[in-house]
Amino acid sequence: MRFFSDNAAAACPAVMDAMNAANRQTTAYDGDDWSKRLDGAFSDLFETPVRALWVATGTAANGLALAALCPPHGSVVCHHDSHVQNDECGAPEFYTHGAKLLLAGGAGAKLTPATIGELLGNTRNDVHQAQPAALTITNATEYGLVYSADEVAAIGDLCGARGLGFHMDGARFANALVHARCTPAEMTWRAGVDALSFGFVKNGGMSAEALVFFRPELADATLYRRKRAGHLLSKGRYLAAQMLAMLDGDVWLANARAANDGAARIAAAAGDRLLHAVQANEIFIRVSPDEAAALRAQGFDFYDWGAGEARLVVSWDQDPQDIARLATAIAAL
Amino acid sequence: MRFFSDNAAAACPAVMDAMNAANRQTTAYDGDDWSKRLDGAFSDLFETPVRALWVATGTAANGLALAALCPPHGSVVCHHDSHVQNDECGAPEFYTHGAKLLLAGGAGAKLTPATIGELLGNTRNDVHQAQPAALTITNATEYGLVYSADEVAAIGDLCGARGLGFHMDGARFANALVHARCTPAEMTWRAGVDALSFGFVKNGGMSAEALVFFRPELADATLYRRKRAGHLLSKGRYLAAQMLAMLDGDVWLANARAANDGAARIAAAAGDRLLHAVQANEIFIRVSPDEAAALRAQGFDFYDWGAGEARLVVSWDQDPQDIARLATAIAAL
Amino acid sequence: MRFFSDNAAAACPAVMDAMNAANRQTTAYDGDDWSKRLDGAFSDLFETPVRALWVATGTAANGLALAALCPPHGSVVCHHDSHVQNDECGAPEFYTHGAKLLLAGGAGAKLTPATIGELLGNTRNDVHQAQPAALTITNATEYGLVYSADEVAAIGDLCGARGLGFHMDGARFANALVHARCTPAEMTWRAGVDALSFGFVKNGGMSAEALVFFRPELADATLYRRKRAGHLLSKGRYLAAQMLAMLDGDVWLANARAANDGAARIAAAAGDRLLHAVQANEIFIRVSPDEAAALRAQGFDFYDWGAGEARLVVSWDQDPQDIARLATAIAAL
Amino acid sequence: MRFFSDNAAAACPAVMDAMNAANRQTTAYDGDDWSKRLDGAFSDLFETPVRALWVATGTAANGLALAALCPPHGSVVCHHDSHVQNDECGAPEFYTHGAKLLLAGGAGAKLTPATIGELLGNTRNDVHQAQPAALTITNATEYGLVYSADEVAAIGDLCGARGLGFHMDGARFANALVHARCTPAEMTWRAGVDALSFGFVKNGGMSAEALVFFRPELADATLYRRKRAGHLLSKGRYLAAQMLAMLDGDVWLANARAANDGAARIAAAAGDRLLHAVQANEIFIRVSPDEAAALRAQGFDFYDWGAGEARLVVSWDQDPQDIARLATAIAAL
Repeated sequence: MRFFSDNAAAACPAVMDAMNAANRQTTAYDGDDWSKRLDGAFSDLFETPVRALWVATGTAANGLALAALCPPHGSVVCHHDSHVQNDECGAPEFYTHGAKLLLAGGAGAKLTPATIGELLGNTRNDVHQAQPAALTITNATEYGLVYSADEVAAIGDLCGARGLGFHMDGARFANALVHARCTPAEMTWRAGVDALSFGFVKNGGMSAEALVFFRPELADATLYRRKRAGHLLSKGRYLAAQMLAMLDGDVWLANARAANDGAARIAAAAGDRLLHAVQANEIFIRVSPDEAAALRAQGFDFYDWGAGEARLVVSWDQDPQDIARLATAIAAL
Repeated sequence: MRFFSDNAAAACPAVMDAMNAANRQTTAYDGDDWSKRLDGAFSDLFETPVRALWVATGTAANGLALAALCPPHGSVVCHHDSHVQNDECGAPEFYTHGAKLLLAGGAGAKLTPATIGELLGNTRNDVHQAQPAALTITNATEYGLVYSADEVAAIGDLCGARGLGFHMDGARFANALVHARCTPAEMTWRAGVDALSFGFVKNGGMSAEALVFFRPELADATLYRRKRAGHLLSKGRYLAAQMLAMLDGDVWLANARAANDGAARIAAAAGDRLLHAVQANEIFIRVSPDEAAALRAQGFDFYDWGAGEARLVVSWDQDPQDIARLATAIAAL
Repeated sequence: MRFFSDNAAAACPAVMDAMNAANRQTTAYDGDDWSKRLDGAFSDLFETPVRALWVATGTAANGLALAALCPPHGSVVCHHDSHVQNDECGAPEFYTHGAKLLLAGGAGAKLTPATIGELLGNTRNDVHQAQPAALTITNATEYGLVYSADEVAAIGDLCGARGLGFHMDGARFANALVHARCTPAEMTWRAGVDALSFGFVKNGGMSAEALVFFRPELADATLYRRKRAGHLLSKGRYLAAQMLAMLDGDVWLANARAANDGAARIAAAAGDRLLHAVQANEIFIRVSPDEAAALRAQGFDFYDWGAGEARLVVSWDQDPQDIARLATAIAAL
Repeated sequence: MRFFSDNAAAACPAVMDAMNAANRQTTAYDGDDWSKRLDGAFSDLFETPVRALWVATGTAANGLALAALCPPHGSVVCHHDSHVQNDECGAPEFYTHGAKLLLAGGAGAKLTPATIGELLGNTRNDVHQAQPAALTITNATEYGLVYSADEVAAIGDLCGARGLGFHMDGARFANALVHARCTPAEMTWRAGVDALSFGFVKNGGMSAEALVFFRPELADATLYRRKRAGHLLSKGRYLAAQMLAMLDGDVWLANARAANDGAARIAAAAGDRLLHAVQANEIFIRVSPDEAAALRAQGFDFYDWGAGEARLVVSWDQDPQDIARLATAIAAL
C-alpha cells in the first residue's frame, strides 16, 4: 500500500484517453491543436489572459519561472524548507545562471510577511549583495499546509511594494485550491502572483506540468529558454492533451478532492500524532521507529521524515480500503 | 500528406501498449522496473557494459552528453550545419555553461578527419583559446547522409589521439544503422564513441530518448545534471517503458527500415534533382518555387530548405500509397 | 627590440604619476574622487551623458558589455577573426551565460553591412535558433584596419533596424581615432554604438580599461555584474586615476599618434610585403621563414601570424631608432 | 581618521617601488620574470610545491578557487556570515556556474566540526540535492576571529573524511597568521587546505591577490578560467611584482603586525564593549547611536554593523596617534 508519494501514482483515465487521441494527430513541437488551445484554456480557468507552456517536470517549470523573474546577479526569496532549495539539485541556480536563494523561515514551510520582512531587512541595498528580485512560495507547502488567498495576497502586496516578481510553485496547486475554497484567480494573479507552476503529474497526470504566466510578456523569452533547456518536446501534443483532458470536466479538482479527503480521514485517526495540520494530501506524524516498523510490517509504504517522524501521502487513485486500513493502523499504534 | 518531419509522426503501437503497461506499476523517478532494466538492455544491445539514461528530448541528451565531455572553458568541434549549432537555441552552451562550438566543414554535413584536422590546426594551444575537449557528429547527418562504421572509427582515432571526448548525436541512429549494415557496437564504442544520443522519438517513440555512455563513469555526474535540468521525470517509468518496447523484437530497426525504404523509393524517382545521396529517411531535392507550389497543391507538406531546395522526410508510419504518390509527383515535375 | 605586442609596453609617465597621487587618497571601491569623476570626464569627451566603469582588462570590458546587450539565449554577431571569438577563452560566453557568437566575414577582419546581412539572412526567426541580440566590431581590427565613422554608422543603422545592441571593442580605440580623424562622438554613439570598451592598457596604461555606456541605463545592472565577476577592485582609485591622467592633456591621443606614426614608417619600408593597409599601429607582412629568422637574428621580436606571415606592433614608447632599424631591416630583406 | 576599512589604505612603499621596477621590464600577460617567480616564492614560503596565480581581487580568487573545487551541480559549505555568501554579489555562483552555498553557523563567523557536521547530517545523499563538494572558511573571519592551526586541521580532517575540497579565504591571512603564531604551512596545507586566497590588498598591497593551490594540478584548469573571467591582465607583471615585494623581507608580516597591534590597543580600551575577541585587526563594539555620533563628531570614520554595533578596522599604515586618540575616545564614552 503505497503512501510514499503522489509522484508514483498512475495517470488517470482521462489522461490515458488523451494520449491515445493525441496519437491520432501529428504535428511537431507545439504547433498542434492541443498546444494551441493551452493559452485559451488557462485564460478561461483564470479569468484573465494568460500564457501557458507545457514542460515535463515541475522542476523545469520552477526553473523557467524563476529565470523569467530574476537576473543572474539577483536573488530569490524562498523558504528554507522549500522544494526549490532542497529538492531540485540546484535547478533554480542552473536556470537563472547562478541567482542566489535567500532563505526565510516560517512555521510549516510557509513564508509570512514577517519572516520575509526580516530577511529583506537584513539585505543591504548595495552592489556587494545579490539584490532580491523574486520570491517564491509553494502552495500547498512541503508540509502540506495551504496558503489562503488572503495570505497569498499579503505576500503579493509585499512583493509589489518591493518590486519582487512573485512565483507560486503549485506542484500541488489543485490540492491547495480544493482546501482554500477560492477560485484559481483569487489564489494567484488577483493576489499578485506573476507566474505559477501548475502541477498535474502528482494529481493524475503523466508527464506534463503547466507554466502559467499572468504577465503574458514573460512568456516571450521563456519560449527560448524552454527550447534551450531541452524542454520543447518534438511531440508536445501529448503534453498539452494531458492537461486539457484534466481541465475538462474538472477532473483535476475531482482528483485533488479525492486525495485531500483521504488525507483528512487519516488525519482524523492520527490525533495528536499530527505534526502539522492536514490541509492537502500529506500527513506528517510522530512515530517511533518501532511504530514505523509496525506500520511497514502491515504493508504500508511511506517515507521517514527526520527522526521519529513520517510522511504519508494520499494519491488521487488511492484505494479507499487502503486509506481506511491505514487510518485504523495509525489509530491502533 | 505529411513529409515535413519524422518529428511529427505518431507513436508506434508497441509504444502505446508500453504506456498502458507502465500505468499499472507505480514508483517514482527512475526507481521502477523499466528504468532499472535500461542499463542491461542497452548493454546487451551494444555488447559492452553501458549506462543509459532516459531524457525527454534529443536536445537534452546532446546537452548532457557534451557537458559530460567538455568543461565550461573548453570547446566542442562540430559541423557548421549540425543540429547542436543551428537548431537547439544554444542548448550546448546552456548545458556546458558556455563552452564554445568550433565549426568545421565537410560535404553533406559530414565531418572528415581532414576538415577536423584543419580546424584543430588553426587552434592555438594557449590559455587565450578555449581548448577543444570534445567532438560531436550526427549520424545520420542533417542532410541524411550516413557515416559508415569505418568513417566513425577514423574520427574516433583522431579524437583518441587528441584527447577529445567523442559524442554521436543519433537522433536518427536507427536510420543510420539500417543503412550502414553494421552492429550498434561497430557504429559506436568500437569506433571510439564515448556517448550516444540514441533517438527514439523520430522513429516511432513518443517522448523518450536514451543517453548512452560507453564510458559508464560519465553517467555519475550526469545523473545530477539531469535532475538539475529538470529532466528527471517523476514518472520516468513511461519513458523507460517506451524505449524497451521499441528495442524488444527490434521494433526500432523495423521502423527505421520502413522509413529508409520509403525514402529510397522517392529518391529513385527524383533522379538528378537529388542534392545529396539518400541513405536514411530524408530526401533533399532541387525544386523551383513553382514546382514546390505544384507539389503542395497536390497535398504534399514539406519544408523549403534554402532557395530552390526542399526537404522531404519519410516517417516510420508513412502510408505507402502516399510515398508512391509523392514519387510519381516528383517524377512528373 | 620588442615589436610583438603593445600589451607589453611600459606604462607612460602620466600614469605612473597618477598611481602615486592615488596612493595619497584613501577610499574603498569606487567611492574615491577619481572614480566619481569618470562619468563626467567621459561625458565631456564624448559630448553626451555617458556612464563609464573601470575594469582591469579589455576581456572583462567586452564580456560585461556583451552581457549588457545580449541575453543568455541570444546570439552576438562578430567577425570570425575577432578577439572575442579567438582570444578570450570564451569570456563572452562566460559573461553572457552561454550566448552564441555568430561568425561573419569581411576583409581585414572588418564586418560590412553585406557580410552582416548575409549572416542574418541565414538566421531563422524561430525558437530553435539563438536570436541575434547584439553585434560587436573591433576598431581598430585584429589586422590593424580602421572603420571610419561612416562605416561604423552604416553598421549602426543596420543594428538599429534589426534591434541589435551595438558594441565596439576599442582595445586600440585611440589608434583608430587618430587615423580616422573624427571625434570620439562621431566614431561611437553618433554612429549608433551603445557600448564601448575603451582601451588604455595597450596605449600606455597599466591596468585599467573603461567600459563606456552611451545608453547610460545599461550601467545599472553592469555594476552588479562587475562585482560578481570580481572586477570591483577594492582600491579602484588607482584604475580611475590612470585613465583620467591619460585623458588629461590628450596623452592618450599623443601616445596613439606616436605608435601609429611609427607603424607608418615601417609600412613605408615594407612595400608590397604588406598584407593589410597599415592604418593603426600594427603591420602584417609576408616573410619567409628565412627572412623571419634573419629579422630575429638582428634582435627584432615579433609574432608569426600563420605560415609566411608576421605581425609587428609599434607601442607608444617605441624607440624611434628601433623603428628606423626595423624599417631598414625589412627594406633590406 | 579612517577606521572603516583596511580596503581603503594606501599601498605600502615596497609596493610602490615594485610598480616602478615593473615598469622597466616589458613582457605581456604572465610571461615576465616576476610572474614566473611566483610559484617558487610561494613554494618557499609554504615549504611545499605550490602553484600561485595573481588576480586583481579576493572575490576573483575565491570564485576561481571554489570553481576548482566544486562542480556546477555541487554545493559549498560556508558560514552564514561569510564574505562569499554576503559580500560578493554571487561571485561564487557565477564562477562555479551555479553551485549552491550551504550555510552553517558558529560563533564569531567560525565554522566548527560540530556546526559543519550538523549541516552535512541534514544533507541527503541523493540526486535531488546538490552534493557538498567543497568547504570554505575565512581566516581571519568576518568578525576578526582567528582559526588556530589546530582548528583548521580539525576541519581539514572532516573535509578529508567527507571528500570535500577545502578552501581558505585569506583576505586577512597575514593578520590571522601573526595572531596564530604558526607557520604558513601549518595554517594551510598541513591542516588540509587545498587552496588559499592569499590577501595582499588589505595589508598594504595595491591590486594583487594570490590564489595558491596546494594541490598544484588544480591550477591547470584555473589558468583558463582566469583568462575567461577577464583576470589575465596583459601587464600582469605589476601584480606579481607587488606581491613579491611584500613577501620580500616579510613586509607582509610587518604590516599585519602593525595593524593587529593597533587593534589590540583599541580593544584594551573598549573593555566590555567588545562583541568579539580582538585577534586580528578588526574591533566590533557595542555603541549606542549617540555614542557612535559622538565618535564621528570627533572625526572617526567607521561602519555601523547592525543596530547598536560598530566595526572599526585598523590598517597597516594607521597613524599611531589616531589609534591612541580612538582608544581614548572609546574609553571616554
